[in-house]
Amino acid sequence: MNSQELFENIKRKQSFLCVGLDTDLHKIPEFLLTKEDPVFEFNKRIVDATAPYAVAFKPNLAFYEFQGSQGWISLQRTVKYIKETYPDVFLIADAKRGDIGNTSKMYAKAFFQHFGFDAVTASPYMGQDTVAPFVAFDGKWVILLALTSNDSAAELQMLPVGDGSQRLFEKVIDTSKQWGTENNLMYVVGATKASMLTDVRKLIPNHFLLIPGVGEQGGSLQEVVEHGMNSQCGLLVNSSRAIIYADGSQKFAEVAGEKAMELQTKMAGFLKSHNLL
Amino acid sequence: MNSQELFENIKRKQSFLCVGLDTDLHKIPEFLLTKEDPVFEFNKRIVDATAPYAVAFKPNLAFYEFQGSQGWISLQRTVKYIKETYPDVFLIADAKRGDIGNTSKMYAKAFFQHFGFDAVTASPYMGQDTVAPFVAFDGKWVILLALTSNDSAAELQMLPVGDGSQRLFEKVIDTSKQWGTENNLMYVVGATKASMLTDVRKLIPNHFLLIPGVGEQGGSLQEVVEHGMNSQCGLLVNSSRAIIYADGSQKFAEVAGEKAMELQTKMAGFLKSHNLL
Repeated sequence: MNSQELFENIKRKQSFLCVGLDTDLHKIPEFLLTKEDPVFEFNKRIVDATAPYAVAFKPNLAFYEFQGSQGWISLQRTVKYIKETYPDVFLIADAKRGDIGNTSKMYAKAFFQHFGFDAVTASPYMGQDTVAPFVAFDGKWVILLALTSNDSAAELQMLPVGDGSQRLFEKVIDTSKQWGTENNLMYVVGATKASMLTDVRKLIPNHFLLIPGVGEQGGSLQEVVEHGMNSQCGLLVNSSRAIIYADGSQKFAEVAGEKAMELQTKMAGFLKSHNLL
Repeated sequence: MNSQELFENIKRKQSFLCVGLDTDLHKIPEFLLTKEDPVFEFNKRIVDATAPYAVAFKPNLAFYEFQGSQGWISLQRTVKYIKETYPDVFLIADAKRGDIGNTSKMYAKAFFQHFGFDAVTASPYMGQDTVAPFVAFDGKWVILLALTSNDSAAELQMLPVGDGSQRLFEKVIDTSKQWGTENNLMYVVGATKASMLTDVRKLIPNHFLLIPGVGEQGGSLQEVVEHGMNSQCGLLVNSSRAIIYADGSQKFAEVAGEKAMELQTKMAGFLKSHNLL
């Protein structure tokens, strides 16, 4: 999928929502625990309920690895189900991988070929070697951590670097934007720092950004849109816990769907007010 | 395992060798491919042949994830076998993970509780949040990427930061050494930059360092020892391909054992010349 196709999906669904499948066996409704594969059952129902309002899904790998090989089976089932049932959805492996070339290539093959993901998140610390094997796959994406939304993100990411005119996250963006194109490289920019989106947009006006931290981590959707939206929308805004754990009863999927629709309705408004619909 | 216990193992085996289990289905001897779990069979034989000469083993997770859930089963079998057969071995999950607190906690549980690894490699980019959940486990370690051995490592790691008196990898070490202790925090320092070990030792004279890149990536063991060894040895030197793929015949494990012994013999010499034996 290229950026134009992603934008077409955004316009068609009037949404730039990504639903984070951070599926924790200890947090899903109890009645699912008797199922053969509770994590898959949970994901399937969440996906069915939210797919009309979301253009992307993003399983965070930690939650699956936590269960060892069983977790990987649940993940494989989830990915297969989404790809077969909703083939236009953009599927992100939130893996935050980063390794040297030949190892990074193994990760790229694992996520793109074995699973069939469209994109993988990666850490920039080891430089271009990390990214090259991912962008070598036609139609696939790497999503590089630039500015994250966690408390300790600033410790390194906000340090002035080089001649002091840029902070590390800006240098990461400025250096790495040569490693790929607007059709295979996105950036993670935390929504808790929405005003810094303006600084990010100076460096990469056209790239797509994956924005975590709206909702549960305190970010404001309006600020994100104000500082980050471009002529192709250019945003995928993720929400995980606020959607998937909104309700713990038998009706959890229905409520998740309602939460996703609430966000989609807001997003449709922003897309309209920016003349993108 | 704390640093003193690790040092005791180093003295007993007269070795600070870590064998990297980067087990690639396309590189292992063909006769193993008819086995039910070729990756485990390969690992088991490599481990049996090299364990007398190695204090640590380090599976790189990419090679297992490449095979999806089957890869995780092979990894689980490998870890279980090593722990049961060689309980004093230091087991490193080379995962290079890095995520926010609650997610990092899932990774910590996955690697320490589910698998039983002693240590996990992690990327520093997201700050202390990444490390805290790992060091919270008693007797377990996090091994933070500082200076890596790949070609593009310098792009970010060598940038001057702050007032320009430190490079990013030094700032990472200087900042992060507060996040743990000498008993639960190590650093990855690539052997292709052995002279920089002197700079690293100025900041952390006592911490253990995990040194990749000796052998196949061009680093020199002698230089590493010269610049990096401390009064507790303070080094784990990794070799992967040069040992495990030294021979592709039925005798692969025997040859791997010989290669490991060659390195161990050199290491014993260095330990003696530094009055550590």
